[in-house]
Parts: sequence; C-alpha cells; structure tokens
Amino acid sequence: MNYTVVDELIKRAFDEDFPSGDITTEALIGPDLQSRAVLLAKEDGVVAGLEVFQRVFTMLGGVECRLFREDGESVHSGEKIAELTGNTRNLLTGERTALNFVQRMSGVATLTSRCVQALSGSRTKLLDTRKTTPGFRYLEKYAVAVGGGVNHRFGLSDGILIKDNHIKAAGGVARAVEKAKERHGFARKIEVETESLDMVREALDAGADIIMLDNMDIETMKRAVSMIGGRALTECSGNVTPERLRELGDIGVDYISSGALTHSYSSLDLSLRFIDE
Amino acid sequence: MNYTVVDELIKRAFDEDFPSGDITTEALIGPDLQSRAVLLAKEDGVVAGLEVFQRVFTMLGGVECRLFREDGESVHSGEKIAELTGNTRNLLTGERTALNFVQRMSGVATLTSRCVQALSGSRTKLLDTRKTTPGFRYLEKYAVAVGGGVNHRFGLSDGILIKDNHIKAAGGVARAVEKAKERHGFARKIEVETESLDMVREALDAGADIIMLDNMDIETMKRAVSMIGGRALTECSGNVTPERLRELGDIGVDYISSGALTHSYSSLDLSLRFIDE
Amino acid sequence: MNYTVVDELIKRAFDEDFPSGDITTEALIGPDLQSRAVLLAKEDGVVAGLEVFQRVFTMLGGVECRLFREDGESVHSGEKIAELTGNTRNLLTGERTALNFVQRMSGVATLTSRCVQALSGSRTKLLDTRKTTPGFRYLEKYAVAVGGGVNHRFGLSDGILIKDNHIKAAGGVARAVEKAKERHGFARKIEVETESLDMVREALDAGADIIMLDNMDIETMKRAVSMIGGRALTECSGNVTPERLRELGDIGVDYISSGALTHSYSSLDLSLRFIDE
Amino acid sequence: MNYTVVDELIKRAFDEDFPSGDITTEALIGPDLQSRAVLLAKEDGVVAGLEVFQRVFTMLGGVECRLFREDGESVHSGEKIAELTGNTRNLLTGERTALNFVQRMSGVATLTSRCVQALSGSRTKLLDTRKTTPGFRYLEKYAVAVGGGVNHRFGLSDGILIKDNHIKAAGGVARAVEKAKERHGFARKIEVETESLDMVREALDAGADIIMLDNMDIETMKRAVSMIGGRALTECSGNVTPERLRELGDIGVDYISSGALTHSYSSLDLSLRFIDE
Amino acid sequence: MNYTVVDELIKRAFDEDFPSGDITTEALIGPDLQSRAVLLAKEDGVVAGLEVFQRVFTMLGGVECRLFREDGESVHSGEKIAELTGNTRNLLTGERTALNFVQRMSGVATLTSRCVQALSGSRTKLLDTRKTTPGFRYLEKYAVAVGGGVNHRFGLSDGILIKDNHIKAAGGVARAVEKAKERHGFARKIEVETESLDMVREALDAGADIIMLDNMDIETMKRAVSMIGGRALTECSGNVTPERLRELGDIGVDYISSGALTHSYSSLDLSLRFIDE
Amino acid sequence: MNYTVVDELIKRAFDEDFPSGDITTEALIGPDLQSRAVLLAKEDGVVAGLEVFQRVFTMLGGVECRLFREDGESVHSGEKIAELTGNTRNLLTGERTALNFVQRMSGVATLTSRCVQALSGSRTKLLDTRKTTPGFRYLEKYAVAVGGGVNHRFGLSDGILIKDNHIKAAGGVARAVEKAKERHGFARKIEVETESLDMVREALDAGADIIMLDNMDIETMKRAVSMIGGRALTECSGNVTPERLRELGDIGVDYISSGALTHSYSSLDLSLRFIDE
Repeated sequence: MNYTVVDELIKRAFDEDFPSGDITTEALIGPDLQSRAVLLAKEDGVVAGLEVFQRVFTMLGGVECRLFREDGESVHSGEKIAELTGNTRNLLTGERTALNFVQRMSGVATLTSRCVQALSGSRTKLLDTRKTTPGFRYLEKYAVAVGGGVNHRFGLSDGILIKDNHIKAAGGVARAVEKAKERHGFARKIEVETESLDMVREALDAGADIIMLDNMDIETMKRAVSMIGGRALTECSGNVTPERLRELGDIGVDYISSGALTHSYSSLDLSLRFIDE
Repeated sequence: MNYTVVDELIKRAFDEDFPSGDITTEALIGPDLQSRAVLLAKEDGVVAGLEVFQRVFTMLGGVECRLFREDGESVHSGEKIAELTGNTRNLLTGERTALNFVQRMSGVATLTSRCVQALSGSRTKLLDTRKTTPGFRYLEKYAVAVGGGVNHRFGLSDGILIKDNHIKAAGGVARAVEKAKERHGFARKIEVETESLDMVREALDAGADIIMLDNMDIETMKRAVSMIGGRALTECSGNVTPERLRELGDIGVDYISSGALTHSYSSLDLSLRFIDE
Repeated sequence: MNYTVVDELIKRAFDEDFPSGDITTEALIGPDLQSRAVLLAKEDGVVAGLEVFQRVFTMLGGVECRLFREDGESVHSGEKIAELTGNTRNLLTGERTALNFVQRMSGVATLTSRCVQALSGSRTKLLDTRKTTPGFRYLEKYAVAVGGGVNHRFGLSDGILIKDNHIKAAGGVARAVEKAKERHGFARKIEVETESLDMVREALDAGADIIMLDNMDIETMKRAVSMIGGRALTECSGNVTPERLRELGDIGVDYISSGALTHSYSSLDLSLRFIDE
Repeated sequence: MNYTVVDELIKRAFDEDFPSGDITTEALIGPDLQSRAVLLAKEDGVVAGLEVFQRVFTMLGGVECRLFREDGESVHSGEKIAELTGNTRNLLTGERTALNFVQRMSGVATLTSRCVQALSGSRTKLLDTRKTTPGFRYLEKYAVAVGGGVNHRFGLSDGILIKDNHIKAAGGVARAVEKAKERHGFARKIEVETESLDMVREALDAGADIIMLDNMDIETMKRAVSMIGGRALTECSGNVTPERLRELGDIGVDYISSGALTHSYSSLDLSLRFIDE
Repeated sequence: MNYTVVDELIKRAFDEDFPSGDITTEALIGPDLQSRAVLLAKEDGVVAGLEVFQRVFTMLGGVECRLFREDGESVHSGEKIAELTGNTRNLLTGERTALNFVQRMSGVATLTSRCVQALSGSRTKLLDTRKTTPGFRYLEKYAVAVGGGVNHRFGLSDGILIKDNHIKAAGGVARAVEKAKERHGFARKIEVETESLDMVREALDAGADIIMLDNMDIETMKRAVSMIGGRALTECSGNVTPERLRELGDIGVDYISSGALTHSYSSLDLSLRFIDE
Repeated sequence: MNYTVVDELIKRAFDEDFPSGDITTEALIGPDLQSRAVLLAKEDGVVAGLEVFQRVFTMLGGVECRLFREDGESVHSGEKIAELTGNTRNLLTGERTALNFVQRMSGVATLTSRCVQALSGSRTKLLDTRKTTPGFRYLEKYAVAVGGGVNHRFGLSDGILIKDNHIKAAGGVARAVEKAKERHGFARKIEVETESLDMVREALDAGADIIMLDNMDIETMKRAVSMIGGRALTECSGNVTPERLRELGDIGVDYISSGALTHSYSSLDLSLRFIDE
C-alpha cells in the first residue's frame, strides 16, 4: 500500500462526493462534536483495504481509527473490524467514501480467495487481468494479491503481451518476439497470445517466456502444456468462470487468468455503526 | 453525457493504463498502420456508455467510431454494436480502456433494467445510492438512468439526507428539519431517514419532503406508507435485493433504493474483434 | 467550511501569486525570523472567511493564527480580528493571499447582510445566483449564507431550473416539468422561469415546485403571488438592486434573488499590521 | 491573451459549475438542436474578455461565436457585441460561465477606463495591485491593461517590493536594496515602500529604481516628488479612491496604484438573448 | 512516443515558462502575423524528440511543422532538420520550450549512440538507469532507446531489483528471490544486486533471472560471468564511464548500465533560425 | 526555497517513479522496519538542493533527515553531508528520487561556482538563461544562485527581452522599446538583443535598460561596451563556453550569460550508504 498513490485516489473520491461540502452535516452538526463508531462485517469474507479505510479519515482529520484486523484475514458476519473515534462531522462526511473503498476491495479479495481455494490441490495459480474499473486498478489488483491471487502486468507500460495484431504487423511470431526482446527483453518477460497448437509451437520456437492459451478447449490446452514441457510459463485465458476453475486446474497450466475477479465482483457487506455513549 | 466530465475520467484511465506508453504496440506496430474492428455483444443486455467508448478513441486520435446502437437499447449476443476504423496503434492501445468503460456501464444498465422490470405493474420506482465505485460515480449513475432507474442525490453537496446522528446533534427531528430547510430548503428537498413508525410520524410532522423507511419489515413499511398518506415521498431502503423487489413493489412506496445496482453488478460481456482485410 | 475544497483554492492562489517563490522575502529575510501581526478592521462590516484566512498560514506552515471573531459577526473599524505569530517569511508571503480571500468574502457577507436588513419585516428571504467569480463560487456562496442569505442551487449539476429554451425544446411547460420530474424529481425541486401570468399559470398547473417571476413589474408580481397562493415557492428575479429591495419585499414573494451579491460587491477594508517587539 | 493560461481557468469554471453535467439541459434538450443568440450590452462601458467569452464555447464545442467588438472598445446599452450560433445544449450550458468571465473583465476595464480619464491632463499613470480575486488575477490584470491602466508586478515571483519588514530584517534600507540588487537586480527594478521623507531619502541614496509613497498626505508627497527629482520612478499608494484621483494627479508622481480597480469593481451588465427563428 | 504522456509534459513546460503569457511577444507582435523558421543542427549528433518539438507547436496552434529527419538519424552541423511556418506569436512563444526538449533528448541520444559504438564488436548491450531528471524520465529513456541503448525498468513499479537491504530484511538471498517470485514472478524478471562472488552464487542458486555485478573489479566480473554460464542475464553496474566501456565490453556481460547517459549528458546544439521573406 | 513549489515537483517525481508503488520493497520489507543511512560526497563540489533532498523523505513520512551542510558549501569526496534515520521502506523508496534532485542541483551549483571563479578579478557577473530542463527550471535556477550566479528572467511572463522578430514586427528598435515600456516599463527593465554596433546604438538611443551583445566577436563587444558607457547594463551572450570565460571577463560587460550552466551540466556524484547496526 503506497500512500502517494492512495491519497490521490481518496482525494478524487472526495472531489466527486462533495465538490462543495457536506451540506447536511455542516448545517446540522457543530464543528467540535465527537462520536464513536465501529466497522462491522455483515457477511463472511476476506477483508482488504483497511488501510485505505483508515486513510480516508486521516485525510479528513480529527478521527482516530484503530484496526482489529489486517488485510487478507477472514472475517465473519457480526465481527468488529475497526473502531473510529473523533470529530462527528468528519466521521459522517467520510463514512460512505471509506466504505465504498473497503467494501469493493474486500469483495475482490473474497472472490479471489474463493477462486484460489477452487484451485487448491493443483499447481495452478490464479492471475488477474487489465479488466479493472477505470481509475481503480491499483486497489483492485492490490485486493487480488490480498486474496491470494497473482498480479499480471499492471498496464500497457510495464509488460509485453503480443497479440494477433502485433504478430501480423511484425511479420510473424518469430519476428515479433525478436523485436520485443530486443527492445524490452532485459527487464520484462515476453508473453505471446496463442489460439492454436501451431501458434504455441511458433511461440515456443521464438523463445517466448510466457505462452497464453487463449480460448482453447481443454483437450487442446492439455496438448499445449505437454508440448511446452516447462520451457515457457503457461497462462490459460478466456471463458474462465469461477465454476470451471477446478476443472481447469487439472490441465497443468502454470496460471489461469480471470477477468471476473475485477470486472464482476460484489462488494462485501460491511457497515459503520455509531455507538451511543 | 457531458464531455468535460467524461474526458477527465478517460484521461485518468489512460494515465493509469499507460503512464509511459504502450510498450508492446510501440515496439511492434508502425505508426501509420490501419485496421478495422467491430464491437460485439457476447451476451444479452442493455448497452450504456457507447459515447464514452467512442470518446476514448477520439481522444487517442486517428480512429473513426460508428455506433449502430444507442444507450438504453437491448442488444443480443452476437450483435454488432459499433465499428472502428483507423490507426492500428491507437485501436490496440485504447481497446481495453474503452471496453472497461462500456462493459461496466452496460452491466449497471442491464442490472437496473432487470430490477425495473421486476417492479413493473407497481407504482414504485427504482433509485440508486451513493454506494458507487470511487471515481466512477458519474458513469455508474448515468448508467442507472439509462437502465430505467432514477438518480438519488449525486453526493453530499447536492442533497439533504438527515440521518440518526444529524437528528441527535440537532436536538430532534423537528429541529433538524427546520435547520436544514432554513439553510437549504429553497432548492432542495429535505429527506429524513427513519427506523420506526414513531420517527416516521415525527418526520412527517416536521415537514420532511421525503421519508426514508430504513431497514423496516414489510408490515411496518405498509403502516408507514398509510400513515404518510402521500404527504411526503417515501423511499424504502435496506436489505433490498433484486430478488425481493417484486414483493417490495407491493408495499406502495414511491421509490426503492438499491445499492447493489452500483456496488455489485457484473460487467456485460462485450468484445472487440479485429477484421482481416 | 470544507477543507478539502478550500485547500485546493488556496493552493491555486499560491500557484498564481508565487509560481517560483517570493523573491523579495527569500532574498532579504532569514528562514528562522519570527514576527507578530494583527488583522484589523478598517471599516465596519460583517466578517466571513476567517477560517480561510487562518488556513492560508496553516498551509504555509510555522505560523499560529488566533481568531477573536467568528464568521458572521459584525466588526467595527479599528477592531482586532485575529493575531498571527510565527515565521516572518511565511507571514509576508501569505499576507496578501490571505487578505484577498477574507476581504472579498467579508465584502459579500457585508453586502448580503445589508440587503437582508432591507428585507426585515417582510416574509421574503434573499437568494444568491450563479453570477459568481469563476473559480470562487464556493467561497462567495458561503459568504452569502454567512451574511444571512440563502443559497440557490450551486451550479448546473445540482438544481433544475427550466428556462424558455428548455420549454420550447421540450414542447411546452407541462411536458418540460414532467420530463424533469421523471428524471430528477426525487431529490430536487423543479423550478420554472416565467415571464408572464400565462406562464405562471402553466407552471403552476404543471406542478412546478418553484416559480421564478423573471423581470416582471411589481403589479404583475403581486398578481402572480396571489394566483400561486402558496402552491409553489416564488422567486423574484431580475432588476433586483439593493435599493429596490424594501419595495420588492412588500410583494409577498418567498425569495428575491440578487446577482449583485456576488457580481458587484466591494472588498471589506481589512489589513494586517505587524507589531514591533 | 494566452490560451494555455485561459483554457485552464475555463476548465476550472466548468468543473465548478457542472461537476456532473447540466442536468436540466440534458434532460430536456436533444443533443442535436441548434440555436442562435446574441451578446448584448445592457449598460455603457468598456468591454474586455471577448476572446475568453468566445473560448468558453470553443471548449464546449459545436458553437460558432462571431465578435463585433474588440477588447478595449466602448459599447453602449443595447449594442450587439457578439453572435453565437450552434448546438443549443452547449449554448445553454456555457451561457452563465461565459458571461461571468466577460462581465467581470468588462467591469474592471470600465472602472479602469474611468479612472484613467480622471487622470487625463496629468503625467500620472494608473497602476493595478495584487489585490485581485484568488485564481482570477491573470484576467483582472489583463482587463486593467485593456482599460488603459498599467500592470504592476504580477505576483511575488516577478517583482521586488521591499517593505518595512524586509528593511528591518535586512538591517536598513541601504543593505536591503543592495542585497536585492545583488540577487535580482539584473532583470528587475527594485522598489522600496516608504512612509516618510527620511525613508524616501534613504531609498534614493540606496539606489532604488522605484519609490513607493505609501499613505502620505498630499503635501508630503509633493515634497517627496521634488526631493526625488526624477532619479527614481514614483508610485503613490494608499487611500486611493477613484474620487481622489484628479487631486492626486496634480502631485506629479509617475504612477498611482489603486487596489479598487480589482477588489471593488462591479460587473458590467451584459446578457445573452436567444433569437427565435 | 505516446501523446497522452507527452502532452502533459509540454503543458507543464508551458506553465513553467509562461504562467501569465509571453509579455514581450504579446506587447509587440500582432496576433495574425506569420513567419517561417528552420531548425538547424549546429553540431554533429543523433537527433531525438523531433515529434515532441513538433507537438509543442501543435499544442500552441497555428504553426505547421514539417520534419526532414527522423528520431535516431545522424545530423551534421549546418543541416536543416525541420521547417516551421505559421503564427509568429506562437513561433516565438514556443521556440525555447521546443528547443529545450529536442536539444536534451538529442543530447542523450548522441551520448548513448557514442557509448553503443564503443561496445561494437562485443556482445554486450548498453542499459540506462533510474538516474534521470525528475519529471523528464519518459523522454530521457525514450532518447536512450533512440540512441541504440536498451531500457532498464522504468521505475519502482515495473521491475524487481533486490538490493542489499531487501535481502537482509527478507532473511537472505534465497528467501528474498522466492518471495519476489511468488508475488511478481509471473510477468517480471527478478534481478539481484550482488557485490561478491559468494552473493553471485547465492543469487544463481536462488533462481534469479538477472544478476547485477555491482562495483566489482574486472577480474571478479570475469569469474562471475563464467560462474553464471548463461543461466542468468548479467548486468555490470558501477563506475561505468564512457571511457571504460570498451574495456568492460570484453568481460562478456550481457548488459552494462550507465547512469551517465541520463544524468550527465550535454544538450545537442540546435537552433531555430527565422527566415526573412 | 519555496515548499509550495517544491512539493509539487517532488509529487510529480513520485508519480513518475512509482505510479503503482515500490513493488520490490513492498514485497520484501515489513512496514515497521527501521534503518539508518548517510548521504556521502563521492567527489568534490558545491552542494545545492539539500532541503529538497530532505523534503522527499518528509513527504514520504517516517524518516528523520539531519543535514550537516548547507546549500552553497563546498564538500569533499568522502564527506558526510546528511544522516537519515527511520522507516526502511520509505528510505528505499525515496532514495533514488532524493538523489536525482540533489545530484543535479549540486551539479549545476558546482559548474556555476567554477565559472564564477573564472570571472574572479573581473567586474563581470555570470547569468543563467531559459535553456533549462522542462519542468525543472525552478531548481536549476535556484542552484545557479547557490553557485554564485545571477538569475536572468525566470520565463516569458516576467521579463522583457526584445529580439529581432519583435523589432521587425514593431517597426524598429525605437518603436519596440517604446511599446514595451508603455505596457511593462514600470516594474520591468527592457532588454534589447543586438547583433551589430548599429543596433547597439539604436537600442541605447531608444532607452533600453539592458543591451544584449549577441554572438559578437570580442573586438566588437569592446567597442559596444565603450559606446554604451554605463548608460545601460550589458549582457554578453552566445558562444559562451566555460573555457572562454576568463577572456570574456576582460571585455568589461556587466554580465555574461551561459546556457551551459543548465543545459550541459554533469550530476555531482553523491550516494546514500546504509549503516549496519
């Protein structure tokens, strides 16, 4: 968790939620009132984003946030996750923003954790994708890692993934891999997306570090894995639903990537309860 | 759709996805290559965000995007929604960002549309909430409207919602409503969150414009609606799942608000297919 | 006063006033020198923006600012409003920016307060408009409220005001109000701008929540108020000068809006005096 | 007029006025509707900011703006200043922002022009100050120049003005001027603020390029001007009201600076009238 | 060259150079004057940044820039590199900023190209580092690639480089590499910085993808290369001066990294000459 | 050193170096680990930017930085300049950014100091130019001053420099100087660039405050200085290399400007050494 990055995201959330202040709270609550509240789990899951939750109140000021849990831990419905004490205005103004962050991040971590469990027993690891909410990728990918998944490249600037169009434009797999290695081969692995066993062989011959098996049926993937024989990492991609994970885990690929982890998760049900004193 | 707002969001998505360029594409594809691609539906749903999709490529430049559908229309799996022609680099660099926008927005519109249908036959309308993805609220709320829902306040600056803590700090419902009206009653309706019939009566007596029935059982809500008798708008909130909507629609409240519309939707499956020429 | 909003405005003022530092002060004053200064009223008025004044120095650092007055209080020429002690460099660098904020905001509050007094005895309240200095609206509207005025909508995103062109495009008042209510009627009141008694009647029949009487003569406004009979709020707008307020207050409208409050105010004369020790 | 600077200011005005769109216009007006409107003078004055007015619509797009006047020209009540044709949505969304810019800038130019006229016949020129609206200085100072005034330094980074505290900290006028010249004397003139004839002499001896006569009575200023005898520029400052200008012009100072030009002006009454077709 | 990235850098350069316009040009040159100018080489070198040069004028507007050369080509003193025609104001306002970009980038490319030549004949490639000018890294690294060098990781977010402190904190090389692979091993290569042959062996055994030989003497490096035997990539780092490159090239490492490429280059002498017509 | 300005530059450097965190450090080092390190000189020179170095860690937090030297002091190879204690993560994440700032700034100060020494004995002072790294000008110019140089105008907004094109457009030197004085002559000196003795005379007659002798041979410059006879400041510009400075110092010009100070400096070799405890 890097605060330089996170603070910017929180600042934007504030600008979005109250470009001209919290009019209800400012009209009704004195600037010096103090309150206490607890963050409660209302369903079971894996929490992620607790520091972001806490940071929202640090940025608003005047609120102390004590955490009872750490990112990656399981929580159960009814459990107390954190306690907040301090300025009532800022507690109320920050409540929804703080929850929006931690509920989404915990949703991603919970879904990821379940998918990782579906793969337990296999050698296959779970990868995320770039199918993230615009502006929210840092936190969604962070939550995938918290949930036990592995992060694929962050974006277009930090990883090489050669797709069909790149191959055509470069004049074939071999030439594409060669050019990519020449330019970026020092620090980065070269991944090639393949759609058939022929392409797998070409990628292998070209010296790809990672071969993505895209939208292949299970039989073809098995043959690909066997053909590759450990000479490159393998990533199974396409039509990966949480339900199919156990089956896919038996193929023997190194990684399975799932867009659903970040594009189709549900928020974890958490809420803030104010404590009467 | 306001481009001043949207362009900022797209710019941030670019900064996130390629802070230092698209290294694969720049290494392998010449700056002048041209391509064609179509946006395809891969499942049924309601599309939203087509102008955002289009705008991504306008901002990158050199790509023409023709839309065959409008926001709010139903699409069927296999349908062609848009066609893109132009600079191959920009097509590849923008592909995932453009899809991330339109798939999420269409996911919200599709879920909203289904929930609205569950309420058909009743007089009750569907509301969204502030339970949105930080930084993405403008587009999620836009998509709720596209899907047939109604927008609640955008954020803390543009609507009055008096909660328990506000009431306590102000010294009772009557005083809270009075103070809120005095300060913001000209342009805005005053909404009070209630948790019991007693609070409903107090809010009504205080002249609330909208009374939120929060986390009440169905019997209590029916009595509340009858007590209010049209003298204030009513909003049912809490424990609203898409499944319960039909049942809730029979209570006779004016609006039901559902956080799930924006906090727990799945992306609609859309993809870009490049066309060989 | 919301510091997330205010800090951004102060930051911009700094960027404007010293994009590359305070060259006189940095050349002549050592980094550790300490000074004391007081903020003095040099004419009578109502102060507003004292927290912004204070915040300027908090953001520069090393200066303590004690306030003797609160926003909304009357001050008299010669009165001490605040005392500053601390780093001389930051005192000198921040002086003009801090004064520019508080003098303008106090100017708005003072003018508003005088206008509100002109309406005393009547039931009519004073409203501001969107005729504010670009980039300075949050503070100008805040100062109107401090001076006893009521805030109209903040901007185009948070209030519905249906004007002539909207009516024509929608196909008549009834249709315009209906469409606006459908889309935004839950959280917001619907205001219609009218220029004749016929339009007033149409707006009333259409169910407008607020009817603006725009540029009408006094006789017409009286008839409009009587026709409306409390079924909608009324706003008198156009040709509102501070001088005419008393006369307008007798018409019986609920609100009078005055652009002059924010577009033609004078700064209140305040100054910083350094104290020799 | 520099568009890099101006576009940023317009962008902020948009963010302020419609952080989430123009909800009335988007609900009621189709995206392709066209309109025509004219910018009218409703009182006499000097116009400034016409390019900013025009640029607002360029930035929103789809609107053509033809100018009939140039900055600095006098306009009379009833005169047509510009004509706009194009997208109705953008015309309505931009109307108030565009007017807010041009009315304020024309207000500054008009006031400046009147003050300059009060000095006609004398050799004295009119200067502005840093007493500008935070965030709006570039445009206010531009308007001063349009109205016939002369710009003092823009801010703390681009001019040397040695005040009392600087002198004390540096150990006297001579030492202060010497240090300032050493560090910044190449490109910038060194101005010293004086409050007595003794200080004037010291500043003169120290080699100040400009001597500010601050808050002196007329007799003292005359003696100061005579003592200086053209060896430094002179600026009269403090208690400068438009009314006193003629009297001050007789003293023989080179410049008189007036904060009121930018801190206490009224907006010029201009309005947009839509033309029925 | 990605314009989303570049435009931001140019915008900042404008804000820095003319926060309130180009006062000389605006005072002396009419808005419609046209000029012609050529970009000339005044010494031999390799050009880089021509598109950035061009883009400066695109962003200011009204100037056409035709390029006669491409990035990476050698130019000779006296050669014409580009021709500009258009608005005189924008030509003058943009001249220095455009030159500042292209001269620095060409300086980096020229130095890199000379260093690459010093390595010709060897199998060793030249790498850059993170020792770049804050805010200018994208362009400096781009210029290294243009000059024939290879880019190391862009920054801390996109590459793993395990240093001494990381190793100690993780509890040894083996454990550090293992943890890094687990978390980031899919898309990224794992590099370990070593300072002795013992550390080289440990890194090799731990499965490092790249082994940095940091500050070793030539003899030790030779033994390290021989010990590694192609099982990991090797990077020679520390005390790399352009002068020593030929000698270092004989060691047989895969890459030599040189901070000097970006931290101690000279600008290439280029200038803009206006053409009289 | 103004922190409002500096913090912005540091923030950008962070965004550039770790848009999504420091992945090595976050994977391998616990959030609470503490370390100690010293900043060491590895060659002789003049330090500049120590407060920026320190501020990098203030902004990351959790690190104390004690300075043993001040900007402008000479340091010798091996000397300890500062000591850092605190959070290991932030020490490692900030190390390179902090060094990139202080090494470049010290490089500029060192080069400037050497050039100033070459002029010792003469009456001529050393000036910088606008030939700075885009986005880094504030710090480069600051470092020139630290090294004993004098700052020319900061940018296009704060100084008048009339070049050939300005003169032609204005209709001659006399007219150009007159127009510039009229508009900006109060606060700013008027500089004219001349290329021949005829132009020098014209500029002198026109009342220029500063006359730049651009690209003249030594003999011509001597005659120009003699012709000017102290009636204007003189600046020698063009073909100024550090080597020629001594010779140029004998001409008797007031100032020599050198672009090389900021466009072709080498970073001073400084490094951070972690201390085992």
